Amino acid sequence: MKKIKVGIVGLGRLGRQHAENLAFRIPNAELLAICSVVKEEVEQVQKEWGIKYGYINYDEMLENKELDAIFISSPSGYHCEQIIKALEAGFHVFSEKPLGLYLDEAKKAAEVVNKYKDKQVFMLGFMRRYDASYAYAKKKMEEGAIGDPVLIRCYGLDPSSAMKGFLKFAKNSYSGGLFLDMAIHDLDLARWYMGSEAEKVWAIGGAYQYPEFKELNDAETGSAMVKFKNGTMGIFVAGRNCAHGYHVETEIICTKGTLRVATVPEKNMVTVFDETGARRECSQGFLERFEQAYLAETQEFINCIVENRQPSVTVEDGVLSTALGYACKESFETGELVTVK
Amino acid sequence: MKKIKVGIVGLGRLGRQHAENLAFRIPNAELLAICSVVKEEVEQVQKEWGIKYGYINYDEMLENKELDAIFISSPSGYHCEQIIKALEAGFHVFSEKPLGLYLDEAKKAAEVVNKYKDKQVFMLGFMRRYDASYAYAKKKMEEGAIGDPVLIRCYGLDPSSAMKGFLKFAKNSYSGGLFLDMAIHDLDLARWYMGSEAEKVWAIGGAYQYPEFKELNDAETGSAMVKFKNGTMGIFVAGRNCAHGYHVETEIICTKGTLRVATVPEKNMVTVFDETGARRECSQGFLERFEQAYLAETQEFINCIVENRQPSVTVEDGVLSTALGYACKESFETGELVTVK
Amino acid sequence: MKKIKVGIVGLGRLGRQHAENLAFRIPNAELLAICSVVKEEVEQVQKEWGIKYGYINYDEMLENKELDAIFISSPSGYHCEQIIKALEAGFHVFSEKPLGLYLDEAKKAAEVVNKYKDKQVFMLGFMRRYDASYAYAKKKMEEGAIGDPVLIRCYGLDPSSAMKGFLKFAKNSYSGGLFLDMAIHDLDLARWYMGSEAEKVWAIGGAYQYPEFKELNDAETGSAMVKFKNGTMGIFVAGRNCAHGYHVETEIICTKGTLRVATVPEKNMVTVFDETGARRECSQGFLERFEQAYLAETQEFINCIVENRQPSVTVEDGVLSTALGYACKESFETGELVTVK
Amino acid sequence: MKKIKVGIVGLGRLGRQHAENLAFRIPNAELLAICSVVKEEVEQVQKEWGIKYGYINYDEMLENKELDAIFISSPSGYHCEQIIKALEAGFHVFSEKPLGLYLDEAKKAAEVVNKYKDKQVFMLGFMRRYDASYAYAKKKMEEGAIGDPVLIRCYGLDPSSAMKGFLKFAKNSYSGGLFLDMAIHDLDLARWYMGSEAEKVWAIGGAYQYPEFKELNDAETGSAMVKFKNGTMGIFVAGRNCAHGYHVETEIICTKGTLRVATVPEKNMVTVFDETGARRECSQGFLERFEQAYLAETQEFINCIVENRQPSVTVEDGVLSTALGYACKESFETGELVTVK
Repeated sequence: MKKIKVGIVGLGRLGRQHAENLAFRIPNAELLAICSVVKEEVEQVQKEWGIKYGYINYDEMLENKELDAIFISSPSGYHCEQIIKALEAGFHVFSEKPLGLYLDEAKKAAEVVNKYKDKQVFMLGFMRRYDASYAYAKKKMEEGAIGDPVLIRCYGLDPSSAMKGFLKFAKNSYSGGLFLDMAIHDLDLARWYMGSEAEKVWAIGGAYQYPEFKELNDAETGSAMVKFKNGTMGIFVAGRNCAHGYHVETEIICTKGTLRVATVPEKNMVTVFDETGARRECSQGFLERFEQAYLAETQEFINCIVENRQPSVTVEDGVLSTALGYACKESFETGELVTVK
Repeated sequence: MKKIKVGIVGLGRLGRQHAENLAFRIPNAELLAICSVVKEEVEQVQKEWGIKYGYINYDEMLENKELDAIFISSPSGYHCEQIIKALEAGFHVFSEKPLGLYLDEAKKAAEVVNKYKDKQVFMLGFMRRYDASYAYAKKKMEEGAIGDPVLIRCYGLDPSSAMKGFLKFAKNSYSGGLFLDMAIHDLDLARWYMGSEAEKVWAIGGAYQYPEFKELNDAETGSAMVKFKNGTMGIFVAGRNCAHGYHVETEIICTKGTLRVATVPEKNMVTVFDETGARRECSQGFLERFEQAYLAETQEFINCIVENRQPSVTVEDGVLSTALGYACKESFETGELVTVK
Repeated sequence: MKKIKVGIVGLGRLGRQHAENLAFRIPNAELLAICSVVKEEVEQVQKEWGIKYGYINYDEMLENKELDAIFISSPSGYHCEQIIKALEAGFHVFSEKPLGLYLDEAKKAAEVVNKYKDKQVFMLGFMRRYDASYAYAKKKMEEGAIGDPVLIRCYGLDPSSAMKGFLKFAKNSYSGGLFLDMAIHDLDLARWYMGSEAEKVWAIGGAYQYPEFKELNDAETGSAMVKFKNGTMGIFVAGRNCAHGYHVETEIICTKGTLRVATVPEKNMVTVFDETGARRECSQGFLERFEQAYLAETQEFINCIVENRQPSVTVEDGVLSTALGYACKESFETGELVTVK
Repeated sequence: MKKIKVGIVGLGRLGRQHAENLAFRIPNAELLAICSVVKEEVEQVQKEWGIKYGYINYDEMLENKELDAIFISSPSGYHCEQIIKALEAGFHVFSEKPLGLYLDEAKKAAEVVNKYKDKQVFMLGFMRRYDASYAYAKKKMEEGAIGDPVLIRCYGLDPSSAMKGFLKFAKNSYSGGLFLDMAIHDLDLARWYMGSEAEKVWAIGGAYQYPEFKELNDAETGSAMVKFKNGTMGIFVAGRNCAHGYHVETEIICTKGTLRVATVPEKNMVTVFDETGARRECSQGFLERFEQAYLAETQEFINCIVENRQPSVTVEDGVLSTALGYACKESFETGELVTVK
């Protein structure tokens, strides 16, 4: 079996998971190189997993011509530049979302991706499309049994338990704010399921328990309502203060039926009955909820390279979802109805 | 509209509820008389609700010829005698379960009921058959969509919160024990849904948290497995120590589908999401769970009188369910497989 | 027991239910008079239930000084006038929602209600507040365990099975459209739970399966997003084409927990397992879902008269909810963000 | 990283899954050899996955001294002999359940396993203990929050859709019957969770839709009730005709709470709302339900070898579960209460 040789940049929490998947769980992939600015991290992972090459400099990794593909899971601020460099160096590229911190970056990345798209695979990490339940919902819709889409409702809520860490991080770093950082996956899903682009949006929100969000000019919890060009509707709730856990729920109301994905973010298949009632405990984070989706998207990336085709999620999905995220942000900041460009 | 004039005996917790239903919620009934050995209780209810006659002596109430029907919700030890007296005095009779504390009593009551059955309505308080969900399950089965019955599983579990009160009561009073007192409703349901009588039973159980049950020669929680004459199976779990509440659940496995009634004993339609997970709070007692069923069975009793017909639940249901209860008790006590007579 | 003597106007589907409740299920009420323009209906109900007075003329009923209270469940277009006349004639008044078809009517009714409020009880039929599950949710919030409100999401969806009847009716009659006719209960609930009034609203919607809605200048399914004055958020989805039934769901996201009322509109407590999966069948209409709430609100109305107090739901609730409904309607029709007056 | 070199025997449906896991998803394992009596199968898998050695003769594979471990997923009738041969040849051994078709075989295998247990790892494929939800339930119990065990209820039901295939297979092959073939996993789980061995059992069952089971002297659906030596209770329902799918459910009732694992055998996280109600679709087979558990148990086997320790599931678990299965079978066949030896 031909194995695609991959070099990964970024070994944070999600990066480490991607690296592990590439090293051990993708039959037709081989993790040949790892790159991180933290030298000790590189050395430790190399040693533990037997990875051939280790880099603390991204440009040096790109000079390694044994590699077929570059996998980017560095901080968001580096994505745009690293995507472009890797493509220009002739590699297939997977990048975690977003394409860049600003819409301009996303567009610039898209331009380069399109330039190389005949020969090089590019994939953006909208992993939810590869989650078994989300894929199943899409299939149900395509089979036609539930009719045409009318409305999508998406919740993307981070657990309260992550609040402290988030506030510390947010004060020192620009992530785009709630709608770009949290809601972006939902905006992409909505475009995918509704089969249309956003026309207008109104977004609201506030600081309900943590006044720090006011200082950050961001929302602790926020909502956006979107009118799509085909007349369908989108409702998005994003937040960082969900008491019960990591609540990512999607509902698609159609003319002949409705689908709900993870209406309770069930941790596992155990129901606990005790003096509080009958309860399902909940997922506490994205790695717990989407472990298999991360694996599946990476498998798809490698398969695309092997089979010489592009994945169904495109760079335009990244640009358009980012544009919608920025429209939400603008609406939230101005209080006005915003037309999506 | 002709109103059936009713006299009730017993004004305990359930008796009071029955009296209130008869007085205010059954259009074609009138609560004309109440009877209780507690004089103050009688006077208070008479005054509060404007009830015409009050008695502290049951025999005196039976002399009141304005009455059409007698409603018995006195302690179980009085049922048999009061049923017989009321029938012999010419009244229609409703009696709370059981027909009597012992199988002999049940049979004696049945004999008298059958003697008067052409002219006088008799109904036994197996109210679950009149619960909207149980009735719906029966209808589903009769419609044939789920095939023929294979196995019934019944849970009848009292809440831990009632333990203290129960132990106090049990030390001074014979109720027949777990299988006769708690499981009797389930044994009746099983006969109703399976459409067959029990052939053999094995029952086990023990004292798991409260050693008092050993002294009482009873089980804190017990199980019985029944083979019915038509080859179907019954599984019964009864108990008095259910942490989450009053758990009455029934499952009917059929050849083409399965029904579960109250698989979570939901208190209402609220789901609470908090740091414990997503939970449904649970019912805490029989009056909470079966409030509407008590009303519906009483309405059916009155309608039977008006329409001159007998209810579908018969005195034989009482006798046969009691016989099965005693077989469970015998099996639990001897440890042996018991053939139901 | 003193019984409040009531006259009801309107004997349609819901009116009949109210009449039955007043006649038979409210201990301290007596249905003394019924009024409908359909003479046969009046005669039939009088005879069947033994009602003393029957009228085909509302004004005549108001001349009956035996009556204590008037219960209005006539078509919406008559509410305002009938409320005012009954109050001026000295009666306590219950009126089904809405106060009137137009905001002006609602305000006019409110003026008169306020004029008589020291001596006469007035209650508006926002029955959901009296539903056991909605009341339980309110209690949970007031107990403080789930923190402060952040967002409310309300779904009010009529079953597809009622579509044909609705379209026939809608072509010949003005009901205010989707947001006033369907969403009004939700708008009231939102004000109640959020403890604040609406500031701004954007509403969208369309005709997704039935082009007739375009001709009616109404929405088959519509959404509104509301910003409340205290910074909390409201999301409302109303519709007339829900495949699975009558879906009335309410979610209240708070800073320390979330409540969902009827997240599945469960018909009863039966779960059916068959080749389609494990399913809960759904309620098919408002009388099925809110049967007990209609009873409880009527009981509260009668109790208010007896105890000489006003119900917690006030005429202002009617005016303000109507104003918000009209703001939704305006936004839907203009496509613009609307400031609620 | 040191990789354990494994040879697998048996490339049927489950064998293929195990092989794939060993080849691609267990970082510290290498699938070095495969063995099957079907030559084409061996060649095809070797070629497709790049497996070094292929055998059609088991004894030949045992001569390959590059191998560290043998993985047995051949038909049940071969297990006992293959386990013994592999251990005697010096290999670590994983065997799919059962240890053998007869209790004697199980005991013989156990004897040999115990002889080599100081140096060679032996693991039996009771994969459910490695399923995330079952493991979570065990952890909950060990943490003590739900008190001491009282009763375990286990359902193991194969989907109706597999009936045709089963009947064809069963006529030509002895699998031990319903209680040994289907219930064995549940019997093991019960011993694990209850922390005790079975004392007495009564088992019943029959042919409810397919008379073929009568001819096979087996049950289409059967139940067993077990009294454990520590006084706890076990209820087991096994069957081959479950309309909604592969229903493996386990409930553990304890003195302070209850756990249910997979009370609905949810296929994924999608809820479908349509004219049938709100439903969760169900798993259709063991590979779908336990995909991750198969992976986790194999990982544990390899880790045991690397870390020089024995897995927590022992060969005695296999012997005792088989003994209990045979007691169920005897009870079902004789109709009598059976004391487990």
